[in-house]
Order: sequence, then C-alpha cells, then structure tokens
Amino acid sequence: MRESQPSPNTPSPSASSSPSVRTRILRRPQRAAYDLASVAAIVDAGLLCTVAFQWEGSVHAIPTLHWREGDHLYLHAAKASRLGQALLAGEACVSIALADGLVLARSAMHHSLNYRSVVIYGRFEAVTEPEEKHRALRAFIEGLYPGRWEELRPMTAKEVNATAVLRLSLAEASAKVRQGGPKDDAEDLAWPAWAGVIPLQRRQGEPEMEADSPLAEAPPTRFGRPGQDGVGVVGVD
Amino acid sequence: MRESQPSPNTPSPSASSSPSVRTRILRRPQRAAYDLASVAAIVDAGLLCTVAFQWEGSVHAIPTLHWREGDHLYLHAAKASRLGQALLAGEACVSIALADGLVLARSAMHHSLNYRSVVIYGRFEAVTEPEEKHRALRAFIEGLYPGRWEELRPMTAKEVNATAVLRLSLAEASAKVRQGGPKDDAEDLAWPAWAGVIPLQRRQGEPEMEADSPLAEAPPTRFGRPGQDGVGVVGVD
Ligand SMILES: Cc1cc2nc3c(=O)[nH]c(=O)nc-3n(C[C@H](O)[C@H](O)[C@H](O)COP(=O)(O)OP(=O)(O)OC[C@H]3O[C@@H](n4cnc5c(N)ncnc54)[C@H](O)[C@@H]3O)c2cc1C
Ligand SMILES: Cc1cc2nc3c(=O)[nH]c(=O)nc-3n(C[C@H](O)[C@H](O)[C@H](O)COP(=O)(O)OP(=O)(O)OC[C@H]3O[C@@H](n4cnc5c(N)ncnc54)[C@H](O)[C@@H]3O)c2cc1C
Ligand code: HEM
Ligand code: HEM
Repeated sequence: MRESQPSPNTPSPSASSSPSVRTRILRRPQRAAYDLASVAAIVDAGLLCTVAFQWEGSVHAIPTLHWREGDHLYLHAAKASRLGQALLAGEACVSIALADGLVLARSAMHHSLNYRSVVIYGRFEAVTEPEEKHRALRAFIEGLYPGRWEELRPMTAKEVNATAVLRLSLAEASAKVRQGGPKDDAEDLAWPAWAGVIPLQRRQGEPEMEADSPLAEAPPTRFGRPGQDGVGVVGVD
Repeated sequence: MRESQPSPNTPSPSASSSPSVRTRILRRPQRAAYDLASVAAIVDAGLLCTVAFQWEGSVHAIPTLHWREGDHLYLHAAKASRLGQALLAGEACVSIALADGLVLARSAMHHSLNYRSVVIYGRFEAVTEPEEKHRALRAFIEGLYPGRWEELRPMTAKEVNATAVLRLSLAEASAKVRQGGPKDDAEDLAWPAWAGVIPLQRRQGEPEMEADSPLAEAPPTRFGRPGQDGVGVVGVD
C-alpha cells in the first residue's frame, strides 16, 4: 500500500473507519486495515475484482474490471446481462487481490505469499443519468489510458444506453496485507533450504498493433509506456 | 490456453462435458468452453482464485491460492478458520481470472481485455486422512517449487493436523476466453487512434534473500528461474 502512487482522488489518510461485524478480520488480524485510504490504494492498484452475489438459489463469483472514484468502486456490464440485473437485486461482496511475492521458508508450512487484498460488502446502485454514466465511463478510460478519451471516436447515446454502470460504496470494507520475509520456527533457521521472497511483478509486453491501425505508436497506459522495460514493470494484478 | 504447458496430470483433450443450467454462458457464448481440458489448463495457469460462499446471511468472496490434481481444485486454510468451516457447510462458487492483454480500439466501447477465466460450482469436501493431506500438501509445494519438498524440514503431524485441505470437483465448470485484437465498427476504422493489444505478463523480480538464509541461490519456481529475464516472464496471474 505504501508504495502505490497517490492518485488525485485518493481520500485523505486521516479518513478512517472501524470494522463492521462481518468485515472484522479474525485470522491474522495484525494484517488488517479498515480506513478508506488503505482500502482505496489497493482498489486502485488492482485491475480486476471478483463480484460475488446470490441469484436463483446459488452463489455466483464473476470476474470483472473495476475502477474507483472517491469512496465508490465502479464496474460496467451489459444492461441486459444477468450481472447488470442481479447486482441491483441484492447484496454483493467484492474481492480484489494482488500477489506481490512468493515467500519461501525452511519448512513447508511457513511458505506464504506477500499480498494486498480488499473485501467489500454492500449493495450496488446503478448510475442511470446519461451524463453521469458518460462521465464515469470517461473516467474508466482515462484511468487506464491517460489522455486517450479526446482521441477516440466520441461515444454515442446508444452506446451509453446499452451499458450498465454500477457502483458500490467502500464504506464496509477491509484491507489485509502481508509483506516481508518468511517467519520460520527458531529451531529451523539452520536447515539448509533457501529462505526469502521472490517478487511477482506485472509487466507490459511489446504492443501488438492491428494491421490497419491508423497510428503507429501505442499510447501510454496506467502501467507506463508499453514495451519499455523498467517503466512498464508494475507490481499489480 | 493453447500456450500453457501441459502438466503431467492434464486430462486428455478428449474429455468433454456440456454446460449445466447455471454454467451455460449467455453473454458472448462464442467464448465458452466446458470440457475438462480447457477448464484444467486455466486452473493450472492461475495462482489465485476467489471463493464465494454464503455464511450467516451474507455472501462472501475470499481470495486464496489453489492447485489442481486430476479433476479437482484444491485449497488450504486453517482448520479453525471460518473458511475451513463455511466451505463444508454449503455450496460455493470459485472464480479464476487471468488478464492477458489490454485491447485498445478506436471507440471507447470497443476497448476490451484479453482474458482466460473459469467459474466452478459445487460443494467442497475435506481431505481428512493424514497421509492423503500430506500427499496433497506435498503436491502443492512441488507444483510451485519443483524439487523443493525433499529439501525442506519434514512436515510434522501437528502441522498437518492444523491445516484444512479442501477440494472441489471440476465437474460443473465453465471456461471463457477472449483473445485477439479490437472489434471496431467498420465506419471507425480510419479514425486516428492506435488500435491493437498491449500484452500483460507476469514476471519474477530479483530474489530478496533473508539475511540468515542458509543457501544463497533461490530455487526455480513454476514460473522459471527467478531473476532471469525471459525465462521468468509468464503470462499468468
Ligand atoms: C492472494 C492471497 C492468497 C491467499 N491464500 C491463502 C491460502 O492459500 N490459504 C489461506 O488460508 N488463506 C489465504 N489467504 C488469506 C485469505 O484471504 C483469508 O484471509 C483467510 O483464509 C481467512 O479467511 P476467513 O474467511 O476464515 O477469514 P476471517 O478473518 O474469519 O474473515 C472475516 C472478515 O475479514 C475480512 N477478510 C478476510 N480475509 C480478507 C482478505 N484477504 N482481504 C481483506 N479482507 C479480508 C472479510 O471482511 C471477512 O468477512 C490469501 C489471501 C490473499 C490475498
Ligand atoms: C478478467 C476479466 C475481466 C472482465 N471484465 C468485464 C467487465 O468489465 N464488464 C463485463 O460486463 N464483463 C467483464 N468480463 C466478463 C464477465 O466475467 C462475465 O462473463 C460477463 O459480465 C457476463 O456475466 P453474467 O453473470 O451476466 O454472465 P452469464 O453469461 O449470464 O453467466 C452464466 C454462466 O456463465 C458462466 N460464466 C460467466 N462469466 C464467466 C467467465 N468470465 N468465465 C467463466 N465462466 C463464466 C458462469 O457459469 C455463469 O454462471 C470480464 C471477464 C474477465 C475474465
Ligand atoms: C504445504 C504445507 C503448508 C501448510 C501445512 C500450510 C498451512 C497453513 C495454515 C494452517 C494456514 C492458516 C493460517 C491462519 O489462518 O492463521 C495457512 C495460511 C496461508 N498459507 Fe499455508 N501452508 C502450507 C503451504 C503454503 C504455501 C506453499 C503457500 C504459498 C505459496 C502458503 C500460503 C499461505 C497463505 C498466503 C496463507 C494465509 C495467511 C494469512 O491469512 O495472511 N501456504 N497455511
Ligand atoms: C468506456 C466505454 C465502454 C463502454 C460503453 C463499454 C460497454 C460494454 C458493454 C455494453 C459490455 C457488455 C457486452 C456483453 O455482455 O455482451 C462490455 C463488456 C466488456 N467490456 Fe466494456 N465498455 C467500455 C469500456 C471498456 C474498457 C475500457 C474495457 C477494458 C479495459 C472494457 C472491457 C470489457 C470487457 C472485458 C467486457 C466483457 C466482454 C465479455 O463478456 O467477454 N470495456 N462493455
């Protein structure tokens, strides 16, 4: 969390909240945080979330992209889809997880993973006002590809209308973070096995241009300039 | 899917199944597959899953590591944890998602993501027999770090006993895959915006050794040799 770039709409670090009955972390509570700033930093670092909901007698878990504005997580779907309908009909739980490093210990059990994760509970609401949807979808694109919105063929009213934009308050959320090396048992420290962390990173590969792309240079993304090693290396999922 | 390494216990590609009522993909059904080989390849490529379940009147979504043996997905948790208990008490849904590439189009709406994902429905069962748990945990370590098991301080009965090993049949599962470039509207093809795919890849960074690590060289992982560019570059989450 500490290492992510503060984004313009990151809530102030003074924002804080207590856990609810269901967000209180029981396992390894020393890894917990409940303040909006901690939650928002992980939501921003993640590209994907999993949305869980109850529908027709079963629990479902569906992966989608998300973005954040202020104290809400946003996602988009087809207005006619099950996802677009089920999320308005009941409560949901959203999970975001980033794998930051493989933790290797001298014993099997003390192997672990460095991670950052968020779990959010609540009910999605639909953004229905066309200008508001337009603005939110623009923020989605601009958050991924800074400066790109103005270069695109303008979005039509029909496109906005076919799309459901849903948002979920971050009010009932928990963050959990593991960092650092293995925690081996004292009596195992001399056992001859390598101990440490192997960082896991995300990078952007060489852009694969369409044969008929009107421009030759791929635009920068939130992860940096594609194909430029180092710059494109980011520790997010 | 086609690009992943077949693992020794990959089911034969001739294995196939039809969707159930709840796994039939309705949105973009051309991206669907239901055969065990397609599902297993994505389960193997993923490091993390999200487990959704109903518990005390709410739906929950919790991230965990997983591994696969034959036609089951496995995970581990503390025997005393909510996760270890709730998953035995009712049905669950597991989602695995890999982000393979950012897809850039000439219009906002035709932006997309190349991905591979799996959704599995069913009820977890506990692996309770100590030797069977031992064997499964060994397969977990060996799947991540080939050859490491024999180098570790041997696992104790107490450690095995504290750990819940749970497994879920892949019988009711769907795979969904998007690949390829943007699908722009014909009238937008000349619009002056870059069009193509920016691949997203996973790489391993330089190992961070513990100050008191008995050995100096980090072992190979399922992603290759750490710190060696190219070898460590893999397209999985
Ligand atoms: C990438 C990753 C891999 C993991 N792998 C494993 C694994 O293989 N085995 C394992 O046992 N655990 C793993 N964990 C931890 C796992 O997510 C749970 O925290 C743990 O299993 C306890 O689950 P529980 O439901 O019993 O927790 P409880 O502590 O009882 O959960 C109570 C509440 O705490 C909050 N909470 C719980 N977990 C998280 C979380 N991860 N992030 C944010 N809030 C949370 C939720 O609001 C939840 O309702 C992993 C976590 C991450 C991020
Ligand atoms: C990384 C990633 C990002 C995505 N981002 C978005 C997004 O931003 N917006 C969006 O609308 N969609 C996105 N999708 C697609 C999304 O996962 C759903 O497929 C889609 O939203 C339709 O959901 P539904 O519940 O309405 O589907 P339906 O087709 O009605 O679902 C019926 C059944 O199909 C199966 N199924 C559905 N989706 C998947 C899946 N992804 N993988 C395997 N089986 C599946 C399940 O068994 C499900 O019960 C993304 C997928 C991935 C993997
Ligand atoms: C093979 C032998 C292993 C055993 C016996 C074992 C045992 C356990 C147990 C009992 C817990 C629950 C801890 C708790 O909730 O308090 C746990 C959690 C966990 N394990 Fe393992 N584990 C093993 C291997 C691994 C490996 C190889 C990894 C990583 C690659 C791993 C990653 C984790 C993670 C990330 C957690 C969650 C910790 C948290 O809540 O922050 N484990 N393990
Ligand atoms: C900003 C304007 C956008 C609009 C109006 C829009 C609209 C839509 C709609 C209507 C769907 C549902 C398709 C269906 O279920 O049949 C959808 C799905 C999807 N969108 Fe978008 N989208 C936009 C931007 C983006 C961006 C920027 C991305 C990626 C970075 C993206 C990625 C996806 C993905 C991955 C799906 C799922 C497709 C599938 O089911 O395989 N969208 N979008």
